[in-house]
Amino acid sequence: MIKAGERIDDLQRSNLKIIQNPAYFCFGMDAVLLSGFAVIKKEEYTVDIGTGTGIIPLLLSAKTAGRYFTGIEIQEYMADMAKRSVALNRLEERIAIIHADIKHYDAIESGSVDVVTSNPPYMQEFHGIKNIEDSVAIARHEIKCNLNDILYKTSKMLKNGGRMYMVHRPHRIVDIICKMRKYGLEPKRLRFVHPFIDKEANMALIEARKGTGVWLKLEPPLIVYESAGKYTQEIIDTYGY
Amino acid sequence: MIKAGERIDDLQRSNLKIIQNPAYFCFGMDAVLLSGFAVIKKEEYTVDIGTGTGIIPLLLSAKTAGRYFTGIEIQEYMADMAKRSVALNRLEERIAIIHADIKHYDAIESGSVDVVTSNPPYMQEFHGIKNIEDSVAIARHEIKCNLNDILYKTSKMLKNGGRMYMVHRPHRIVDIICKMRKYGLEPKRLRFVHPFIDKEANMALIEARKGTGVWLKLEPPLIVYESAGKYTQEIIDTYGY
Repeated sequence: MIKAGERIDDLQRSNLKIIQNPAYFCFGMDAVLLSGFAVIKKEEYTVDIGTGTGIIPLLLSAKTAGRYFTGIEIQEYMADMAKRSVALNRLEERIAIIHADIKHYDAIESGSVDVVTSNPPYMQEFHGIKNIEDSVAIARHEIKCNLNDILYKTSKMLKNGGRMYMVHRPHRIVDIICKMRKYGLEPKRLRFVHPFIDKEANMALIEARKGTGVWLKLEPPLIVYESAGKYTQEIIDTYGY
Repeated sequence: MIKAGERIDDLQRSNLKIIQNPAYFCFGMDAVLLSGFAVIKKEEYTVDIGTGTGIIPLLLSAKTAGRYFTGIEIQEYMADMAKRSVALNRLEERIAIIHADIKHYDAIESGSVDVVTSNPPYMQEFHGIKNIEDSVAIARHEIKCNLNDILYKTSKMLKNGGRMYMVHRPHRIVDIICKMRKYGLEPKRLRFVHPFIDKEANMALIEARKGTGVWLKLEPPLIVYESAGKYTQEIIDTYGY
């Protein structure tokens, strides 16, 4: 079940474990906060775009009563690790991992999905990157797919009234909001994550809804550290749900 | 200098005074926070759209080394009060108040303004309002002018690279951001105001720049109350600059 260079990490909840390879992209706080921010109701069907090691479906399967999760990942080895993590946790009946390029993947029926989640590559620039086939670069930069690709596919897959949950960088929130609206996804909840209360935000959590009216709720700031090295209670609670 | 029903309020800084009439719209914390958020450099020319009693030019004349401020106000009596406040403070050489409808006012040369400020009417709905000529209703609801009118005129008046500073309600921030971009005004700084740290934001402060690249700075949250009835130090400082 484990290949060379890999390790099994304990997710500290519901006995969940995840296979990661430190030489490749490992999940960060953004995935954990997104899974805390997302609301998935009983029996809902969720698709995670760019699932990587499958961290988001794994966490959401523990947190929610969602019926079924599909994680789509373009990198074959990452998808392979995610599949093995699903098997390791015996979650094959709730989570499916698909190795595919979201841009050309049309097996999910249009208008059939309740929720889309995504922790996509944040960075637009990749001119300076030496090896654009590098796994970490693909996870971090818009090399294989960009915001447009993700929002276009999300809008197509979602039911009317369906929700999208995304984590991204605040400096791109203007692009995100304008493009969401272009694809009929109206932002409804927005929450910014600040490392300290007196610092700029470095993450944005956003909920958008397909085909709905205009009204945004700007939620309380999520503060990560109370003081240097000491997490706030909310962060501790989010890691521990 | 004072008419029936009016009073003179001390602005608690630089000896500034303002004439207000409690039966009409009086300035609120939003105007004070906007004047704290706005950056106006030496010798710059600023236009305030919907200036009301002139509170924003008055405060900015004390806070900044801006050369000249023009406040435009559609309501004749409000503009008259603002003019008298300017005279009361002997600021006629720095502040001009113009009674005009911004939609039809073209006396300011296109591309000539460094900064536009605005604390516009927040509410779109005015179907339920009995008297749409009511002064307070005009200040609060988009009866005489709306977001489009303000952003269109702002973009026209501003120099390339010129800035806009606006305060508005967070629930309309998606509209604001998309319309700003439509008029070539790119949001560059965004700051949300929360009454308490664990409450939703109830004000948004936004800086946009005409004809510039994409990069938004999401500033630390501005928290109003430390505990019930007790302002945070930042609010005390903002009222006291």
